[in-house]
Amino acid sequence: MNDIKDIASFIKGNDSFVLATHVNPEGDALGSAIALSMALSAIDKKTIVYDRDPVPEFYKFMPGWERVRNSLDGLNTSSMPLILLDCNDPERAGVENLTFKHTAVIDHHEVERGFGDIRWIEPSAPATGLMVYRLIKELGISITEDIAVNLYTAIAVDTGTFRYNNTTPEVLRIASSLVEAGALPSVVAEGLYETWSQERFRLLSKTLETLEIIDGIAITVITKDMFKDTGASSDDTENFVGYPRMMKDINVSALFRELAEGSGWKVSLRSKKDLVNVAVIAESFGGGGHRNAAGYKIKADLKTAKELLLKSLKTDLSS
Amino acid sequence: MNDIKDIASFIKGNDSFVLATHVNPEGDALGSAIALSMALSAIDKKTIVYDRDPVPEFYKFMPGWERVRNSLDGLNTSSMPLILLDCNDPERAGVENLTFKHTAVIDHHEVERGFGDIRWIEPSAPATGLMVYRLIKELGISITEDIAVNLYTAIAVDTGTFRYNNTTPEVLRIASSLVEAGALPSVVAEGLYETWSQERFRLLSKTLETLEIIDGIAITVITKDMFKDTGASSDDTENFVGYPRMMKDINVSALFRELAEGSGWKVSLRSKKDLVNVAVIAESFGGGGHRNAAGYKIKADLKTAKELLLKSLKTDLSS
Repeated sequence: MNDIKDIASFIKGNDSFVLATHVNPEGDALGSAIALSMALSAIDKKTIVYDRDPVPEFYKFMPGWERVRNSLDGLNTSSMPLILLDCNDPERAGVENLTFKHTAVIDHHEVERGFGDIRWIEPSAPATGLMVYRLIKELGISITEDIAVNLYTAIAVDTGTFRYNNTTPEVLRIASSLVEAGALPSVVAEGLYETWSQERFRLLSKTLETLEIIDGIAITVITKDMFKDTGASSDDTENFVGYPRMMKDINVSALFRELAEGSGWKVSLRSKKDLVNVAVIAESFGGGGHRNAAGYKIKADLKTAKELLLKSLKTDLSS
Repeated sequence: MNDIKDIASFIKGNDSFVLATHVNPEGDALGSAIALSMALSAIDKKTIVYDRDPVPEFYKFMPGWERVRNSLDGLNTSSMPLILLDCNDPERAGVENLTFKHTAVIDHHEVERGFGDIRWIEPSAPATGLMVYRLIKELGISITEDIAVNLYTAIAVDTGTFRYNNTTPEVLRIASSLVEAGALPSVVAEGLYETWSQERFRLLSKTLETLEIIDGIAITVITKDMFKDTGASSDDTENFVGYPRMMKDINVSALFRELAEGSGWKVSLRSKKDLVNVAVIAESFGGGGHRNAAGYKIKADLKTAKELLLKSLKTDLSS
């Protein structure tokens, strides 16, 4: 494994980079990639920010989101170094079939495979945005207001705006210095939490109605019909699985979302406190994730899918 | 007006204190008073923490909440100095009819009247808890884990856990040092936001279902039947009016709650951004409040009550 000095040298030794992040990007992926792109521009490095998927509408308050392009067609990647951000497997970024001059990784997820000539991976870091902050400082580049907003957003998203147990003194200290540099917490919070469409809000309302609670496990469901009735899309379901956690006696929240094609369900899991490692559960169904947040897909009717999950969770809770 | 040095001298010059805070206490009032009491214990000062009202159930995760007593009966207050916290008018704390040896105020609200021999009032401070933090430092007392949790909670409540526009670099820097001292952000957040009863959660779900949106005004309704169906109580509706603010095109959120007795409605209003001064609207119906949060009661059928409010809001929005 490499450290911050190795990645700093890697950056100093090259002139242009593809900064790629994972598909279905969220705030930490976007903020980290955009902030690093802006910082490298300041020292006359060229960057291409790539995400296979478009920037979700509600992240467009992030300054510089237009830097993100969704295609590398026509680019001679084999002459360019790659930096993979907020993921460490090229498949997660949809770049597994491309060749790059060199490859580097900046990430805080568990290592999926040994990809990367330079690998700066810190699973203990609360957000990739925090690592990018340290890197920008290491490179001696000053934090502009736009960089600050991107990094603040990245850190806010991955720490639940300072509510998750990864909110360390360093997180808050860096957040403080990003506010000093011009990030406005209320503007970021409004961007993240108060720009819902009516369609999304109505879908949430209908989703909460489906709540069932079985042995401390909260189950909610979104069917294709509910998407049709409200006009909302699958993007709109982000973090819906978190709502039932508001209740005091819930250990796990599970959201079943009917997939648009075929017969099947996307299941999102969140555990509360440290009672259940939902990553293990998700892996047993062929999915993955973190200890407290994971997911998988399953082809089955809803009743069977629920039963299989409950069985798996009960085994885990009693072990 | 006095400063932190005056209040520090006042504390050094006396041996025992009544620390009183406002009725219907919330996190900033409780956290500030309990933390100061703990800090003064450490330098062998005696304190009595007083609130006329009991500590709400869900604040009982705050260490030392048992210090709060709800009566001063039998106490010879005239021989004791008073420190009023998180309010600056003795009426707000229900101590207007008592005599004290000296009186001091530590508060961040606008001055209501010239009460207090020592008045350390900073309306620009995001939370009284922040002022108490500075005071404890000024007195050279170390921040224990229990003090840190109380001050972190105080600051979290008054800044919307770092989402409101009063989240300054100082707020985050002090939050960082409180985490360093042992406060756990996820435990505080869980105490504040994740201890809902199932009844409350189901009432929220039913309330969101009633959503109507008319010209940027979100209207939700809670009827007596909904309380009966869910088993929730009127206490459970705290902050329900805030939810529709999540939508991007909402200027005002209005929640109509049917009163248990008689025929009438309690109307809560929240405005988003600064488009509407809802205090003025509420006052026109005989109620009151702040610019962004106000309320009133009205005796009318629901249809009429809604129409009257919409008429009043439209006049305001077009003026």
